Amino acid sequence: MPLIALLTDFGTQDAYVGVMKGVMAGICPDAQFIDLTHAIEPQNVRQGAFVLMTAFSYFPKGTVFLVVVDPGVGSQRRALAARAGDYYFVAPDNGVLSYVLRRYPYAVINELTSTTHRLTNVSSTFHGRDVFAPAAAYLAAGEALDRLGGRVRDHQKLPQPALTAQADRLAGEVLHIDHYGNIVTSLGALAWEDEYTLVLTPAFGSVRKPLRFNASAAVCHIGGTQIDGVARTYAQAGQGDLVALVGSSGFVEISVNHGSAAARLGVHLGDTVELNIKQA
Amino acid sequence: MPLIALLTDFGTQDAYVGVMKGVMAGICPDAQFIDLTHAIEPQNVRQGAFVLMTAFSYFPKGTVFLVVVDPGVGSQRRALAARAGDYYFVAPDNGVLSYVLRRYPYAVINELTSTTHRLTNVSSTFHGRDVFAPAAAYLAAGEALDRLGGRVRDHQKLPQPALTAQADRLAGEVLHIDHYGNIVTSLGALAWEDEYTLVLTPAFGSVRKPLRFNASAAVCHIGGTQIDGVARTYAQAGQGDLVALVGSSGFVEISVNHGSAAARLGVHLGDTVELNIKQA
Amino acid sequence: MPLIALLTDFGTQDAYVGVMKGVMAGICPDAQFIDLTHAIEPQNVRQGAFVLMTAFSYFPKGTVFLVVVDPGVGSQRRALAARAGDYYFVAPDNGVLSYVLRRYPYAVINELTSTTHRLTNVSSTFHGRDVFAPAAAYLAAGEALDRLGGRVRDHQKLPQPALTAQADRLAGEVLHIDHYGNIVTSLGALAWEDEYTLVLTPAFGSVRKPLRFNASAAVCHIGGTQIDGVARTYAQAGQGDLVALVGSSGFVEISVNHGSAAARLGVHLGDTVELNIKQA
Repeated sequence: MPLIALLTDFGTQDAYVGVMKGVMAGICPDAQFIDLTHAIEPQNVRQGAFVLMTAFSYFPKGTVFLVVVDPGVGSQRRALAARAGDYYFVAPDNGVLSYVLRRYPYAVINELTSTTHRLTNVSSTFHGRDVFAPAAAYLAAGEALDRLGGRVRDHQKLPQPALTAQADRLAGEVLHIDHYGNIVTSLGALAWEDEYTLVLTPAFGSVRKPLRFNASAAVCHIGGTQIDGVARTYAQAGQGDLVALVGSSGFVEISVNHGSAAARLGVHLGDTVELNIKQA
Repeated sequence: MPLIALLTDFGTQDAYVGVMKGVMAGICPDAQFIDLTHAIEPQNVRQGAFVLMTAFSYFPKGTVFLVVVDPGVGSQRRALAARAGDYYFVAPDNGVLSYVLRRYPYAVINELTSTTHRLTNVSSTFHGRDVFAPAAAYLAAGEALDRLGGRVRDHQKLPQPALTAQADRLAGEVLHIDHYGNIVTSLGALAWEDEYTLVLTPAFGSVRKPLRFNASAAVCHIGGTQIDGVARTYAQAGQGDLVALVGSSGFVEISVNHGSAAARLGVHLGDTVELNIKQA
Repeated sequence: MPLIALLTDFGTQDAYVGVMKGVMAGICPDAQFIDLTHAIEPQNVRQGAFVLMTAFSYFPKGTVFLVVVDPGVGSQRRALAARAGDYYFVAPDNGVLSYVLRRYPYAVINELTSTTHRLTNVSSTFHGRDVFAPAAAYLAAGEALDRLGGRVRDHQKLPQPALTAQADRLAGEVLHIDHYGNIVTSLGALAWEDEYTLVLTPAFGSVRKPLRFNASAAVCHIGGTQIDGVARTYAQAGQGDLVALVGSSGFVEISVNHGSAAARLGVHLGDTVELNIKQA
């Protein structure tokens, strides 16, 4: 079954998401829909780009991602469809795809201009329903990307999240706060090489060289607090204690075991975070 | 695949919606489910009727709509199934279908009385699970409407939303406030005839004749404020400015570009809205 | 189509639930997903166990339940898969399955240890994605339970909810507060024998014998208030009045007709509730 994954800032209190699925079911009746989230902050293109980046690679080949965070709806901003690796993406040209697309230098990107691949009446306020959902459904149904419109080579790119990496200091910013109050930062991607050693392969910025350090030698500075060491699990902290660890997407997260780190520290999107590494 | 779309006031914090889908999957194993919304205000039949009216026509032919906003559950109110145009609807007989059904004078409406098309044990508090979901699933599986119970010719109708339309003045009310804080009014349906001219085809009330007017000659009065002109897009307003435009369902909406109009104006469901049209 | 039902405390603001579905769609492409709820209170294993217990039996045979309320992720707690009756369950070994499993003395329970039935890289913070979702998808695709790991005979059990039942007095606790503010208690399961008579078949505790009593002779004590009689429907109470009734899962619920009982009474999870029965 063709798979369409949705990420928007529409919320779920209105029928907007359901209407997009209704439109798509009319075009591609055997499509299956999976919601990534509809709770991106209204108009927060950057948060949408980051959440998409952390999620898409867990989906099977051929998945079509319908991404609608679209503050410029009705203006002259273009509408895009892209094939990147084994995936398809449909979104406004405002940078919301740029964190994914920088991983795919050979991605093919087309503008959505074909009037036969959208609804007959296109509103000026809901291109999710009228333009993006139909395009996603046609791609899921097997339509060729080139049939949707002409090639684009200058899509919009967002500024990258902050990440500077030196042997004794990583500096970045808060990118996302999740349902549990975990604070997700731009410090990554990190992976455990062995029980003691972390390896950073920078996800952002110009750093290219992997950086190795001892997890217990790191001190995290965030929201006026410092946290010693990078732990492997929430359970390494006492109940109610702060802990820095490598989150499930490979980025440093600040958590409270059985509590909300964001509430405890009063931290917001964009706040700075540092990891200072004591040299042996 | 048979398609069942759901609209309720159940919220998503409990398992109520999932349980209805489980019941339906048992009766119609290849059904596909699409959520319209489960965030209708508890017991607000009228809001449910309006949201359904703006959404249903985007779904493919044959879709079954399961609509459960049911303050009278357990009382003597009837349970209904209807075929209207190419769609099926299952709902309590409390008017929640009436805004859709007035568009279909030849709709066929039956009462849900068949005991073989409901669960064996019918509770007095959750007919969504015990009566409505089974009926929707049987319809999706191809059961004939007449098998569910006898014909009904006097279904409940809600009072229509306010809409008076004169050459120099439209008057209506606030019907819905969406996730972004956009204020959706009963002033519609409106469509652009050309770049300058709007045509109103009244969605409610006794007015039958389309009304034409110049968009820039309209002044919207709402929440003690006035807004000049009806715009085509959010982007025509400066960031943070109020704008009146034709929303994606054809009704006048009041929005703030990158903000919440409802929060700005302190407007609530049922508040009045006017569009005064300066004569040339 | 194989059916996978999900119950978690992940919320829906992040992409966590969607990512689990993406992983499962890769393993079992024709699986259909139904969300029970993702709004279990963070880390509230007991609430998850209760909501699962009230919901699972409405699903068709063969349904796989993916249950992730997992405060011990990354610690030594085991991961389990179980076959109970006609259903499959996948969950951490923290008691979240125990209210269901006590109904199935012959359930077969295995530990999830097979490294070929999980993702290649297992994080220490998101076993929902890396361990539980793959196992659920393999079961949905027809894999034998025994292939996932060895048999377990000592799974964790939660303390049972309070329920003491005597001829003149039932005592229990508040287990769940729903979207409408209905207060769901442990007093159950109750069923109507005839128009006047209730029969209690204790869902918890050591009482084994059914207990019969006259609904109008019961007086409910909760939150400093008393409510006379157990009603059949919300509609038996005046608008805005408190009412005790048998909820859709067979447990005594305290409701306000067109309002929130939880807000009215200021009651919380774990608070005590009593039903005193006047003897004839």
